[in-house]
Amino acid sequence: MLRFLEMNLGRHSSIGCLAAGLILLGVHLPARAQDDPLPSWNDGPAKQAILDLVAATTTEGGADYVEPADRIATFDQDGTTWVEQPLYGQGLFALDRLAAMAPEHPDWKDTEPFKSVLTDDHAAMAKFTEKDWMEIVAVTHAGMSTADFEKIVDDWVPKSENPALKRGPVTSLVYQPMLEVMVYLRSNGFRTYIVTGGGQEFVRAYSQDIYGIPPAQVIGSSIVTKYEMKDGEPVLMRDPKLFFNDNNDGKAIGINLFIGERPQIAFGNTEGDKEMLEWTTAGDGARLGLLVLHDDAEREFAYGPADGLPDTKVGTFSQALMDSAKQNGWTVISMKDDWKTIFAGP
Amino acid sequence: MLRFLEMNLGRHSSIGCLAAGLILLGVHLPARAQDDPLPSWNDGPAKQAILDLVAATTTEGGADYVEPADRIATFDQDGTTWVEQPLYGQGLFALDRLAAMAPEHPDWKDTEPFKSVLTDDHAAMAKFTEKDWMEIVAVTHAGMSTADFEKIVDDWVPKSENPALKRGPVTSLVYQPMLEVMVYLRSNGFRTYIVTGGGQEFVRAYSQDIYGIPPAQVIGSSIVTKYEMKDGEPVLMRDPKLFFNDNNDGKAIGINLFIGERPQIAFGNTEGDKEMLEWTTAGDGARLGLLVLHDDAEREFAYGPADGLPDTKVGTFSQALMDSAKQNGWTVISMKDDWKTIFAGP
Repeated sequence: MLRFLEMNLGRHSSIGCLAAGLILLGVHLPARAQDDPLPSWNDGPAKQAILDLVAATTTEGGADYVEPADRIATFDQDGTTWVEQPLYGQGLFALDRLAAMAPEHPDWKDTEPFKSVLTDDHAAMAKFTEKDWMEIVAVTHAGMSTADFEKIVDDWVPKSENPALKRGPVTSLVYQPMLEVMVYLRSNGFRTYIVTGGGQEFVRAYSQDIYGIPPAQVIGSSIVTKYEMKDGEPVLMRDPKLFFNDNNDGKAIGINLFIGERPQIAFGNTEGDKEMLEWTTAGDGARLGLLVLHDDAEREFAYGPADGLPDTKVGTFSQALMDSAKQNGWTVISMKDDWKTIFAGP
Repeated sequence: MLRFLEMNLGRHSSIGCLAAGLILLGVHLPARAQDDPLPSWNDGPAKQAILDLVAATTTEGGADYVEPADRIATFDQDGTTWVEQPLYGQGLFALDRLAAMAPEHPDWKDTEPFKSVLTDDHAAMAKFTEKDWMEIVAVTHAGMSTADFEKIVDDWVPKSENPALKRGPVTSLVYQPMLEVMVYLRSNGFRTYIVTGGGQEFVRAYSQDIYGIPPAQVIGSSIVTKYEMKDGEPVLMRDPKLFFNDNNDGKAIGINLFIGERPQIAFGNTEGDKEMLEWTTAGDGARLGLLVLHDDAEREFAYGPADGLPDTKVGTFSQALMDSAKQNGWTVISMKDDWKTIFAGP
């Protein structure tokens, strides 16, 4: 998908050369659509804020100029760069994985929390405790090597489907406007990072292909890994024990731990991103925090509960977060008003 | 120091242009010294192994070719890129820091482990337990914000001195041959990482200036940080509690956690680097593990106890590690035989 986008941009730059040639010949073309680095964004305050931040940080001699090596942009994933309803992509992975593993675990059909999942008992699943989810994560995400886990995710992605939108793979449900922002920031010297509450190794399996973001620039939650020798070869085994929770305050902590520098621009969409935006925008010079508001029931989903939108419990944008945004000068992106196109996939 | 080196290399490339001009005029110069990317290395198997690894991984169409984005080199720090005797640089920092803080802590003069440090009781310090050292780390490395800690390290570095060599600052005691390897690898598309058992935030304070390595490429041991609001501004406070021990198996785990890809080349010098070299050289294609042997009492230090060298307890190169090197085909760098120059500083 990203390759498709970069091919398109490549085509634009050939058009740019053609345009330059025509200008030399005295022929003027309307340049606007070709020059727009964010064609899926409607003109408005959100798009302008992004353009202004890039102009401020990349204009040599300007008060807010940042050396290219220090230009950093961070993106939450679920609900910010791809769909998170009716369940996080990684939740869909865990449920599919349980179903695939069930034949080897006949006891699951009589044991909770597995029984509820295997019988599609949504009412029971809605009441799952954190301990229930951890038991599911333990059997679906741990007990294998890092290499084996990567292979399992790689195999799952092309077969995956979003049950509410009846579309798949889930990686086709990334937001086209956000891919454009990533390409635009990178072309202006920024390093782009995913900073997700989701699993670091889960996202790394597809981040280069989907976002153009290499493994070292994916910061996420992680479980403990153990170094072991198997048949004379070293492996890293995944243990069912939380190592790092990259959510809420964990996002600011994770940015410091993995990057060691403060971003100039950060994108999120929920309570879990608040500290990342605080940490980002508290820095000196030009900084920008943005929050995606899902207010587009027609093309995607509408949920809050801010602004009277429904409270889906997955990906909460509370009124308190909206108040923080106002107080801190963060930009709220209205999916309905700011985005011409939603999905990168067909 | 690194700037000095890169200036020198810059000067070499001007000489290169001059040489090219002279060749056009039919004048031939002996090109060898100018073309050598590792001028502080004597010709020999260690230098050749590095040149061969770079040739193998960067020759397009070759069996071992690696895309530039995936070229990764990792360097242990203490004893590999700078002096670690008679005590790790960070140990010197902790002791200097205790002395500086002592006037505000009058009780320390009667309380261990502080008393032994403040009275320079080397016999007692040699018997310090891990708990003693942790108490010293707790008061010298924790209880302040990450920003304040960075400032403390920044202030200390220029005043620091190695007590055995009577030279300072400690950052002048980095090894010139290793700086050349870093520049050479980077000029061939490699990302260079420090992977140290030492403190990640300690090394980050000077890594860009000394090694040309940015904060995000310093992987080290770390303590817990906590996100707090102070006077309306977010800060990350350093807690006296170990978060990640980047030593032994921790080096392989840390490489996977922070980079998510396996290095093609890794440099170490002690037992603590064994798993990093195992993890590196177990990868497919061309891989290289190297260990610095300190066998040069005249210009630096001589310690092992491998090959009958003295056992200093700081930075142990055991006979078992030497046996592992032979078994795994790792290259041992003899400081005495392989390095023309030792220190980058004057």
